[in-house]
Amino acid sequence: WSVETRDGIAQLERRFEFPDFAQALAFTNKVGALAEAEGHHPKLTTEWGVVVVTWWSHKIRGLHRNDFVMAAKTDAL
Amino acid sequence: WSVETRDGIAQLERRFEFPDFAQALAFTNKVGALAEAEGHHPKLTTEWGVVVVTWWSHKIRGLHRNDFVMAAKTDAL
Repeated sequence: WSVETRDGIAQLERRFEFPDFAQALAFTNKVGALAEAEGHHPKLTTEWGVVVVTWWSHKIRGLHRNDFVMAAKTDAL
Repeated sequence: WSVETRDGIAQLERRFEFPDFAQALAFTNKVGALAEAEGHHPKLTTEWGVVVVTWWSHKIRGLHRNDFVMAAKTDAL
């Protein structure tokens, strides 16, 4: 995970690689199910063989402890 | 759809809005199924209430007629 700052908003981001589009999209759905379960939603960028997951907290326009928890839960999927 | 040029690569892009995360992710999956059926894959950026669909042709590093066809098929989903 790296911290990227965009428009003054710090975001926690990691790139996950897969052998094809279908497996990338399947991971997007796994992260999506986690997001729905936890009530906190990331940006998920899905391409052929790649998913970039970006966590941040909209309300505080930056990173909250919960974003780091969600990043750890994403790694455990 | 608008044409965005990134790193010298022209890309066809449209933003689709939804009332929640689940409906956005459902649309991502519909576009993903279309992409698999057609053998041409976009970038799909999924957030709470928003999906940004980006079509371009990697091989020619730009836009091919097929990208416009895929954009029209995306609209018809």
